[in-house]
This record gives sequence, structure tokens and C-alpha cells, in this order.
Amino acid sequence: MQAMDIEKVNSMDFGEFVDVFGNVIERCPLIAAAVWSQRPFSNLEDLEKHFFAFIDDLPQSGQEGILRCHPDLAGRELQRGTLTAESQREQRGAGLTSLNADERLRLAELNAQYRARFGFPFVLAARLSDRAAVPRELARRLHCQPAQELRTALGEVKKIGHLRLADLLGAEQT
Amino acid sequence: MQAMDIEKVNSMDFGEFVDVFGNVIERCPLIAAAVWSQRPFSNLEDLEKHFFAFIDDLPQSGQEGILRCHPDLAGRELQRGTLTAESQREQRGAGLTSLNADERLRLAELNAQYRARFGFPFVLAARLSDRAAVPRELARRLHCQPAQELRTALGEVKKIGHLRLADLLGAEQT
Repeated sequence: MQAMDIEKVNSMDFGEFVDVFGNVIERCPLIAAAVWSQRPFSNLEDLEKHFFAFIDDLPQSGQEGILRCHPDLAGRELQRGTLTAESQREQRGAGLTSLNADERLRLAELNAQYRARFGFPFVLAARLSDRAAVPRELARRLHCQPAQELRTALGEVKKIGHLRLADLLGAEQT
Repeated sequence: MQAMDIEKVNSMDFGEFVDVFGNVIERCPLIAAAVWSQRPFSNLEDLEKHFFAFIDDLPQSGQEGILRCHPDLAGRELQRGTLTAESQREQRGAGLTSLNADERLRLAELNAQYRARFGFPFVLAARLSDRAAVPRELARRLHCQPAQELRTALGEVKKIGHLRLADLLGAEQT
């Protein structure tokens, strides 16, 4: 998608805004639709700040809800081709589309254990990881305390959102 | 869809729960995903109470965000066939798929005025209305005060959610 400047963003009606930014937080167009209320934005950082503030201000159930809207990494949706375009690109970029059968099985088992333990799926900014690191990180985080793991997972949601916003606005990805 | 009892609902993992209840609030699976945190539910009313409480507890931007996830009535999405299955059924049931060109144009104009005035689309429980009442109600609500109109619109979101939940759980629709 073509990068755009902040004046362009500020001129969007809510329909356009949700079309463009609706998946900055995976499958949560409600959040982009809420952030539109805070326009005008002074720059990318300001726009991002409003996305993150909305997440931080949700009750815990809402924060868990955001996580539950995320797909498993290398899971059923990747196999079936029903991922969002962004997730598909991110999982492919991390090499998760070219796992062998053993690697897929290992990840499926770890994902299932994680979901059973925490009540939400394992979320990781795949673009900052790779096929070797994903199962290692999953196995490590499986042993964290639930309150700490919720914070870690929301931090990953924000990393993913940061990269998606930077893509849309053509900023350097830091 | 087959009706189900509350024990069935309480036995669902979050993936199943979001698959089934993700569109009780139009295009806001985040809300169903958050409500899952409140299980077990004692009955339909209890389940519904948690959906509505989540909406009521959102900041105003989030409540406006919910409304912005709704399609126009008899709008572009109906023409293009991109509505959710539930919206499609509800709009068809109200006779909005068989408007003539003049009626469609009249509604498009009123919808545009409404969106410009309030910053969210006109939301109405179409199943409790019909093709004659929709434009009349839209024209009336166009003149309401914004704070009052936000409350009215959220009330319609809840009526829609109530009917969708009642369908899923096979309850009498009151």
C-alpha cells in the first residue's frame, strides 16, 4: 500500500479511516474506529499513542479480548488461508509457511498448551522473530506468571501495531 | 444456526465462542472475546448482561467506535453484497433490498447527513422496523442532540444484539 502523510490521514472520514487502519490491531476495527474520535493527529507517533492508550484503558477482559482476536502462529488459519493479509505476510516473512511436519506439530502442541494455560493465544511480533526463535520463545513464555504474560502479550500487540502503522505511513521501522 | 443451551455455551473454548458470538455486536468480535472472560453464564440474560456492560463501560470514543463498525442501512455494502450475514438478513427482512431508486437515493442522502452531523452511521434494529419507517426514523433522529443520539444509537445496538443472541440461543424474541 502507498505510504501517506498525516494531513491525508486527518482528512479521512471514519469509513476511509477504518478501511485503512482497521487492522492495525488484528481483527479489532473497533479500536481504529474509536481512535478516529481523537483526530486531528500531529504525526505517526501521536496516532500510535491513541491506539495504545485505548488498549491500556480497557478493562482486563477487553485486553484479553484483543489477544483472543489474534490467530495462532503457524496454526489452522495459516493452513486454511483465512488469515488477514497482514498476518499472512508477517507469518510468511518469519518463515512459518515453510515449516516441516515435525516443526508444525511441535508448534501446534505448544500453542495448545499456551491457550489452555492463559486463556488467549500466543501473540508475538513475527516480523521481529524467525522460525527457530518462535517455538523457543513460546516454550519460555509458557512458564511465565499470568499477569506478567498478559503484559508481555500486549507489548507484542503494540509492536505489531507499530510496524503496521509504520508501513501505512511510510515511516522508518524502528 | 441450531439453537443451543447455556451449558453448551459454557463449555466452549474462546475460539468456538468467538466463532459463534463474534458478531452479536456487529463487526466487534473483540467484545465477544472479552465477554468470554466472564463465563460461566447462568442463562441468556446473564450472557447478554455482560455484552451490554462491556459497551456501557467503554469510553465515549469506544462507544462511537462500535457504531462506526456498523454499515449504512440500504447503503453501498448492501448493494455490493459485502454485509455480514446477520446484517444482510436483517436489512432484507425490513424490505431494504427491494427499495426503488428514489427510495434508495432518499436514504443515501439522509445517511450522509446523519454521518456528517454525528460522526457515526445511523444504526437501527431493522428487524423491528420496515422500509417505510426507516427513512422516517432517520429524518427524526437527525434533529436530536448528539449526546442523546449517542444513547439512542447504543440502545439500537443492544436491541440488535438481543435479537441475535436470542436467535443463537433459541429463546423467545421479546
